[in-house]
Amino acid sequence: MLASFFLVAGASAQLKYVDATEFGLVNKLCQTENRYHRVDTDKYDLTKNEANLLHMPAGMALVFRTNSSRIGVRTDFLDYNVTRSSTTAVSQTGYDLYIRRDGEWLYAGSNAPKDAHAEQMLIRNMDDSEKECLLYLPLFCELKRIEIGIDEGATIEALPNPFRHRIVIFGSSFTQGTSTGRPGMSYPMIMQRSTGLQFINLGVAGNSKLQQSFARIIGDNDCDAIIVDAFSNPGPEMIRERFLPFVAAIRKAHPRVPVIFLQTIYRDRANFDLQERAREEEKRRAAREVFDAAAKIYDGIYFVDEPNLTGTDHITSLDGTHPDDLGYWRWANAIRPRIVKILKKHGIR
Amino acid sequence: MLASFFLVAGASAQLKYVDATEFGLVNKLCQTENRYHRVDTDKYDLTKNEANLLHMPAGMALVFRTNSSRIGVRTDFLDYNVTRSSTTAVSQTGYDLYIRRDGEWLYAGSNAPKDAHAEQMLIRNMDDSEKECLLYLPLFCELKRIEIGIDEGATIEALPNPFRHRIVIFGSSFTQGTSTGRPGMSYPMIMQRSTGLQFINLGVAGNSKLQQSFARIIGDNDCDAIIVDAFSNPGPEMIRERFLPFVAAIRKAHPRVPVIFLQTIYRDRANFDLQERAREEEKRRAAREVFDAAAKIYDGIYFVDEPNLTGTDHITSLDGTHPDDLGYWRWANAIRPRIVKILKKHGIR
Repeated sequence: MLASFFLVAGASAQLKYVDATEFGLVNKLCQTENRYHRVDTDKYDLTKNEANLLHMPAGMALVFRTNSSRIGVRTDFLDYNVTRSSTTAVSQTGYDLYIRRDGEWLYAGSNAPKDAHAEQMLIRNMDDSEKECLLYLPLFCELKRIEIGIDEGATIEALPNPFRHRIVIFGSSFTQGTSTGRPGMSYPMIMQRSTGLQFINLGVAGNSKLQQSFARIIGDNDCDAIIVDAFSNPGPEMIRERFLPFVAAIRKAHPRVPVIFLQTIYRDRANFDLQERAREEEKRRAAREVFDAAAKIYDGIYFVDEPNLTGTDHITSLDGTHPDDLGYWRWANAIRPRIVKILKKHGIR
Repeated sequence: MLASFFLVAGASAQLKYVDATEFGLVNKLCQTENRYHRVDTDKYDLTKNEANLLHMPAGMALVFRTNSSRIGVRTDFLDYNVTRSSTTAVSQTGYDLYIRRDGEWLYAGSNAPKDAHAEQMLIRNMDDSEKECLLYLPLFCELKRIEIGIDEGATIEALPNPFRHRIVIFGSSFTQGTSTGRPGMSYPMIMQRSTGLQFINLGVAGNSKLQQSFARIIGDNDCDAIIVDAFSNPGPEMIRERFLPFVAAIRKAHPRVPVIFLQTIYRDRANFDLQERAREEEKRRAAREVFDAAAKIYDGIYFVDEPNLTGTDHITSLDGTHPDDLGYWRWANAIRPRIVKILKKHGIR
């Protein structure tokens, strides 16, 4: 009985590779010269670090339909560098595949390439029905070209964007997905699969600092709502200095879209590190002050001011700062109803 | 106000390093020549792979008491090799620290060394109270020497083993902790912190195959209970061939200790991989058959025969096979009451 499966669709035959430029790319802010960059960084006044991070395809996903029994990936990397100790290689340079079943995005396969040139098989031995596929790109690398591998005789075609609206999330490593186990486990992507909303990820690890340059990037592009993980990277002084000008710039460009600020999450190091605890509390106080001041000036701005959404047991940290998949999953499930409620108020559902 | 914290206990001063041979080492099966090996592998007939895995300190932990405001680690590695793509460097070569507060083990800090020779700071800026510390060792490397770093004027001393009984867990990568985010997130270690029971980890990734050699290792050492993640690595044929002789060997050495077998967990790749699904189902059927046969012969053997304990949403896999911290956390919480109930029946509490 088992032997018969080995014969299905020539499980060991070579894959046929198709350039992914033919397929849809979702969660994308704007057209870019390199399709897998998030922003054409030459157009903005950015630091080298900010530009490098925006060249990473964090949060973007390919969507396609295929009847192949196998799905593989082959990548030309422009920057391949597996050095982040608290993030798996799967999240840094790998791919994360979901297939729609009964209306839900169900996990299908994920993996990292063995090296910068390796092909990787994500799933094999599937039935030959038509499948709608959602393939999250790696979080921490730079890509030149992606090819999707399928069975020789199979078909593959672009899928229309299955997600509704354009909700931009600008934020820190927490938003880009540092310490996730696989690319689809960052909190915006978990929320995306359970809500059907399109979250456009502008997470830039260590560099979410209420910059005017990022207000311009967001201002230059259409969106239906904006979420900002604003208080994780800047210190209290920077929060006090930059928050109002940031909101003013966003409001000038997008007078009516709801803007939702997220309180920075509790860092588990603060269980015992008194300085970290005091510093983070001071940041949270600063965040409350500046938000209250802004709320007196602007309508349609919101603050999800709950730091403990990764759990009050404080066991979800990989390195004292960044959540693991358990923490991201809890956070995504906790903020989703809060965010959905605000969006509904603005007719976004 | 923040500035005052920077002055506490000279936060930037050099640490004083103390050889960890002075402290307690828990979750250890037996005396070994190299203290951080799990077994003296020369005494048994093992493959090179099995021996290498048993040289890794997976699941062991140092216990000590200190009033230091900082805790660091310095390691001499015999084998340092961060190559497992679905496991973080923190789990492969890093450390995971817990401190007892109000009777509970609370997460304090975790990290990986930057390279094979780097010192690493796990936590700083703590108050100067006496703290009971539990420091899990890395899961996938070989150690020669560990030194604990504390403040120059601080004290540090061995802590008696805080865990009760000796419960041996022999198993696969799932038991060793492949794809955990940090060493303390393997399911035996999660259960340990919430039950206070001592789980001695004999997880050997890819090599839990009901070997007679492992029955001898377990048979040669005192224990109060035995748990076996027995059906993850062998195929159905090997399960049928080796299960009864394995139970016989264990029973000969330990006539009365309860032996609890765990069903192999669902692999999320099987959401769409029909061959994987069929193969895993066949393994589970074989496991049920052989267990039923053994239960007719032996008393005090149990089977936790539930494959879906990482969740029926099947979203916790990092690479199609191994759970992430979310999956391990769910699994540990699901099997804990089942295991505790069996142990209580045998007076182990």
